[in-house]
Amino acid sequence: MTDEPATGTGGGLVRLRVDVAYDGTGFAGWARQPDQRTVQEVLEDALAVALRLPRPVVAVTCAGRTDAGVHARGQVAHLDVPDAVLARLGAGSSSPWTEVLVRRLNGILGDDVRVRGCALAPAGFDARFSALWRRYAYRVCDGADRADPLRRGHVLAWARPLDLEAMNVAGSSLVGEHDFLAYCRSRTGASTVRELQQVWWERVADLAVLTVRADAFCHHMVRALTGALLSVGEGRRAPSWPAAVLAAARRDPAVRVVPAHGLTLEEVGYPVDAELGARALRTRRRRG
Amino acid sequence: MTDEPATGTGGGLVRLRVDVAYDGTGFAGWARQPDQRTVQEVLEDALAVALRLPRPVVAVTCAGRTDAGVHARGQVAHLDVPDAVLARLGAGSSSPWTEVLVRRLNGILGDDVRVRGCALAPAGFDARFSALWRRYAYRVCDGADRADPLRRGHVLAWARPLDLEAMNVAGSSLVGEHDFLAYCRSRTGASTVRELQQVWWERVADLAVLTVRADAFCHHMVRALTGALLSVGEGRRAPSWPAAVLAAARRDPAVRVVPAHGLTLEEVGYPVDAELGARALRTRRRRG
Repeated sequence: MTDEPATGTGGGLVRLRVDVAYDGTGFAGWARQPDQRTVQEVLEDALAVALRLPRPVVAVTCAGRTDAGVHARGQVAHLDVPDAVLARLGAGSSSPWTEVLVRRLNGILGDDVRVRGCALAPAGFDARFSALWRRYAYRVCDGADRADPLRRGHVLAWARPLDLEAMNVAGSSLVGEHDFLAYCRSRTGASTVRELQQVWWERVADLAVLTVRADAFCHHMVRALTGALLSVGEGRRAPSWPAAVLAAARRDPAVRVVPAHGLTLEEVGYPVDAELGARALRTRRRRG
Repeated sequence: MTDEPATGTGGGLVRLRVDVAYDGTGFAGWARQPDQRTVQEVLEDALAVALRLPRPVVAVTCAGRTDAGVHARGQVAHLDVPDAVLARLGAGSSSPWTEVLVRRLNGILGDDVRVRGCALAPAGFDARFSALWRRYAYRVCDGADRADPLRRGHVLAWARPLDLEAMNVAGSSLVGEHDFLAYCRSRTGASTVRELQQVWWERVADLAVLTVRADAFCHHMVRALTGALLSVGEGRRAPSWPAAVLAAARRDPAVRVVPAHGLTLEEVGYPVDAELGARALRTRRRRG
């Protein structure tokens, strides 16, 4: 696979957009790893079977490489396939090839991964580099005795009651473009500057739900931010503390990285079609 | 254990009410069975440990004996314990004994069962026989590709779209007191006359959710009713069919018993305290 957008170019290759949801419990995260069950691997394998392509030729790129145990309802991925493949898919069926492919993939995949949609990607589309933002939710049930066993796979049970107002005061002080080094497991050389666009806690039925949106997130960033905010919410830290940690610009061991299972990638935002290619170019330049 | 209400009587025995929620996935149902993991067994074992009572002395009675795989958010149970036990629970703690017991039980139980509350039962209370009604929900995602992997444990994925209006027409024709033999796995001699109080489908976000309420349900009754309504909802049967099956008063093999995992016992209703004993007596007489 090439990393470049391929729709309508590249010698008969076309780019597909695939929308995916998964329960992260049974996966060692998105990214392929030897001897581990990963979302990327099961999806690539299913695509190879569904499209009758040799393995491991199908390589899939996603918008948000979720960690082990993290869920997704709105993951977006792309892959490039020979255009002859799509003609083959539609043949002999009254349904459009997109529906045939979705049905075929969901028949192959385990029920902890669902393909929600397949489409021809617009020109310039890159699931990762065209994205404007990623939105995650972190779900907490504060009052562990009230925890709903049916949702325990994607909700963190928290023994102490949380003060959402205090957490929102703390959260608002983090919004904006900053170097989030203090909240990242940094890889040498990679930029940790990100634009945090939204940090918001609200009550949804018996849960406290955090919505965080940024242009992109570094490794562990959402879970470290959530941990810092929970310390504020239970009164162990002042609402000014998370911003002080940010300003110190180094990993603070007092910031807990909360468990993966409360976290879900909910949505990825893209610009209008005409701006997809330009956005991808800009992002590449900036991250590189 | 005696089957009679024991609060304030019976030589120092007191009756406790315990409210329980569980994910039925890992259980062979509520009722104890040899060599099977059941809710009754893990709860009785946890109570024996938490109350420092010899096993298997603690016998728990519940409002709705759920089948294998069926969930509960609002299960209610009772048990009788020597009153000295409660005094022991409260000693040495600043919390009320009810909180101590809830915390202790949830510390012992696996996270697929949660005790939501414990209380001294009012006089005449019997979790099973005092109940006025049981309310269940059956959750379906019609449009399997939209199915949310995070909720697949308690939502049935259904490939075809459902007509809720048609199902509600069909459902309303079943409301009232009838012999539900056609929808029950009957045990010889037991009455299958029940009062169905509510049958209602509604859209809740991307789900079709059935609420059914009755004074009580026979074995398999909710799942057979749901199966008949789904046949109407997908257009394979007329809205008049479920009532015709009811009137025939014999098991109809065309009625599918839908899978257990979509079903959740949501709530059990009881009369005001002063009427608990009378209600229990009346129910016993009628069922016997």
